[in-house]
Amino acid sequence: MMIELFHRRYSFPKILTFGFLIIILIGTLLLSLPISIRPGETPDFMTALFTSTSATCVTGLTLVPTATHWSLFGQVVIAMLMEVGGLGFMTFAVMMSLLIRSRMRMSTRLLTQEALNLEHLSQFNVVYLIIRLSLIIQVVGMVFLWFDFKNRYGWLKGIWFSIFHAISAFCNAGFDLTGNSLEDYVQDPYLLTVMAMLIIAGSFGFLVWQDLLLFHKRRCLSLHTQLVLRTGAVLFVLSVIIYTITEHNLTQFSNHLTFGQRVFNTIFMSITPRTAGLTTFPYTKLSAAGISFTIILMFIGGAPGSTAGGIKTTTIGLLVIQSLATLRGQRDTTFAHRRFTDENIFRALTLMVVALAFLLISILILVETQALPKHDSLAYVTFEATAAFGTTGISLGITPSLNFAGKLVIMALMFVGRVGIYTVMYSIFNAHPKQRDYHYPKESVLIG
Amino acid sequence: MMIELFHRRYSFPKILTFGFLIIILIGTLLLSLPISIRPGETPDFMTALFTSTSATCVTGLTLVPTATHWSLFGQVVIAMLMEVGGLGFMTFAVMMSLLIRSRMRMSTRLLTQEALNLEHLSQFNVVYLIIRLSLIIQVVGMVFLWFDFKNRYGWLKGIWFSIFHAISAFCNAGFDLTGNSLEDYVQDPYLLTVMAMLIIAGSFGFLVWQDLLLFHKRRCLSLHTQLVLRTGAVLFVLSVIIYTITEHNLTQFSNHLTFGQRVFNTIFMSITPRTAGLTTFPYTKLSAAGISFTIILMFIGGAPGSTAGGIKTTTIGLLVIQSLATLRGQRDTTFAHRRFTDENIFRALTLMVVALAFLLISILILVETQALPKHDSLAYVTFEATAAFGTTGISLGITPSLNFAGKLVIMALMFVGRVGIYTVMYSIFNAHPKQRDYHYPKESVLIG
Ligand SMILES: [K+]
Ligand SMILES: [K+]
Repeated sequence: MMIELFHRRYSFPKILTFGFLIIILIGTLLLSLPISIRPGETPDFMTALFTSTSATCVTGLTLVPTATHWSLFGQVVIAMLMEVGGLGFMTFAVMMSLLIRSRMRMSTRLLTQEALNLEHLSQFNVVYLIIRLSLIIQVVGMVFLWFDFKNRYGWLKGIWFSIFHAISAFCNAGFDLTGNSLEDYVQDPYLLTVMAMLIIAGSFGFLVWQDLLLFHKRRCLSLHTQLVLRTGAVLFVLSVIIYTITEHNLTQFSNHLTFGQRVFNTIFMSITPRTAGLTTFPYTKLSAAGISFTIILMFIGGAPGSTAGGIKTTTIGLLVIQSLATLRGQRDTTFAHRRFTDENIFRALTLMVVALAFLLISILILVETQALPKHDSLAYVTFEATAAFGTTGISLGITPSLNFAGKLVIMALMFVGRVGIYTVMYSIFNAHPKQRDYHYPKESVLIG
Repeated sequence: MMIELFHRRYSFPKILTFGFLIIILIGTLLLSLPISIRPGETPDFMTALFTSTSATCVTGLTLVPTATHWSLFGQVVIAMLMEVGGLGFMTFAVMMSLLIRSRMRMSTRLLTQEALNLEHLSQFNVVYLIIRLSLIIQVVGMVFLWFDFKNRYGWLKGIWFSIFHAISAFCNAGFDLTGNSLEDYVQDPYLLTVMAMLIIAGSFGFLVWQDLLLFHKRRCLSLHTQLVLRTGAVLFVLSVIIYTITEHNLTQFSNHLTFGQRVFNTIFMSITPRTAGLTTFPYTKLSAAGISFTIILMFIGGAPGSTAGGIKTTTIGLLVIQSLATLRGQRDTTFAHRRFTDENIFRALTLMVVALAFLLISILILVETQALPKHDSLAYVTFEATAAFGTTGISLGITPSLNFAGKLVIMALMFVGRVGIYTVMYSIFNAHPKQRDYHYPKESVLIG
């Protein structure tokens, strides 16, 4: 996968990695301008760099409150960075996967007689379709949000809040203009539903939408889509059950909530940690069990090729299916009447090992270099580092007080979590995986 | 691998699992006797069960101080449980691996022309050799310990202390009669060296000794031995470096130590968390970074087929090698001019996934059910659960105050950590892995 650019050939991973770096740097320059901050605030290069990284990597961890530190211009820059970071990445991931698919299909077609007419879209058409579909969803979400926001903030401010939060929710970016995320909306099921829909739409990724939209024609879903939907459903149900138990159905937060509101907030709470980062409760109030479960969810993240970070639901799904097969003594790893390729499993395994190693080293560095709260420092650091790696952006509050080394580590975590471990590794080590001959009809799911 | 017993055929995993359970129950009955406890102490079934499990699984977590709660008879029972648990498991693991090896060699010999004359020992001879070698090492260690202990405790008590601690160290059991592990010996390099030697001898496992002892004849080491030695060396060096940094060369513990004593204690500290559990410092004094690194080491554990728990050094070694190969774009996972089988890698992967899932679920249950210290509860629970799973037995002190559910979880962790996830799973699910045809000359290392 090489493409021609300025008369030189670059690999996809290199373009993605350096493309993101360039966008972050442009964002940093814009956010460093005096026009980007409110009167009375002092401009700071590191704050601009951190915010630009957090926005482009759709994470949502912030050093300063977005609403009070940044001017309208600064907020527009942040919104645009979220949009470019979210859509740009999705587009790239889809283009890459289509390239891989078309190569694979060429060689497997003879064996499986699988019809080739499912995607007759050119790459340009796909990019156009993704962007159009994304913008439509966001505009629809914006309108729905506006009906709620206009009552609180008036027409004009309501429009800006709707635009910003629709982008933030769809891109799973987790930035907010309210200063306390969605805590004011804990009793507002309408707004939480709209937000949840936007978050879910963004976190599936384009390949899943395409599959679902073409389902009436194709009458089957790809292995990738089936795995994304199945692991998503399992994780969601598991999250609702566990949070209901650990947070005692939210009674520990507030006694003002009706039963229906509790259910809604538990559901919202089960969606948000896997990438969105918009919260209706301060997570410092969570029980220790809730915190540990949230850390696990953030590490897993969302679907690949979406706006999500982490090691991705398909990776965990594949590893669990593989583990169950091994425990049952089966040699083949099968799911939905397909067999995973060995290469697929090895890549999933590598991803998990490298991600764990990367995260653990980051945690060690943070614990060693930061002036931390005297109590629960390990839990706090693990939470914040995982939130950065999963590009979730939920915070227990230590991010604003990070020192220079801490900011660098968190930025590195956000960047790698977003761009992907494989992409970063391949762009650094310039590895060229050997070509495989496909002797058997297998199918791969996206990893990372 | 089935063997005839009482006219019925049992699989190895079933025998191992239920054999351990029976030993634990016998130990429990003996420790429940009034003769087992000191006058003034009250007998308690749960304490007896927990202590028997901890001793048989060579973990070392205790609800009561071994020295003051148990009578000499009780202490002898504990020493015997450690010996049976430590040697019994090692013997079984070696017998199993020899069976697998001989089966594999039969089929690979035609291809590789590998000589078959490396092990001409019958199973009975192997068992005899293991027990003899183990006892010799322990007796030698005992004599060396006695030269130190006799000065502190007198001749007679010195002998009992030497026997108990030689067993505890060699079996990596972590029980002590001093009440504060080896904290009194922080300035005693002689005793620490003897202890470290015993710990290392026990933690390598018999297959490695055999390989090393036969090296002059065979002039090569098996892939298993090479991987054990290499990962052990890497982890040791890494531990020394990291603990030197995180604990600031131990200055935070005590200013009475000379430079040489600091070096010795850092080395001891780097050996003990991977399975031994004998400590020269209270781990509550450790820095947060040191605690997190210790958790990682305990999760990894020692070599398979030894007295160690955890997911084993070879598992981590294999996964890291596989990950590096994938990142470099290589299809084959090679080490020391050999190629790992895919099955081997899949089993390592499964082990890590299942171990992580098991540990995380246990932590969630503990956090939810225990009355924990108000601060750092997550770190405390993660540490204690990993210490149980890695059969390391270092404690931050919450074990004595566990409630009924907590004791059950910790006992389950110790049992699974010791007997092995695969063994327990296979004995429950009764899975019979399909036979493979070996088409190519590959070699496996032990996993789990
Ligand atoms: K986010
Ligand atoms: K131990």
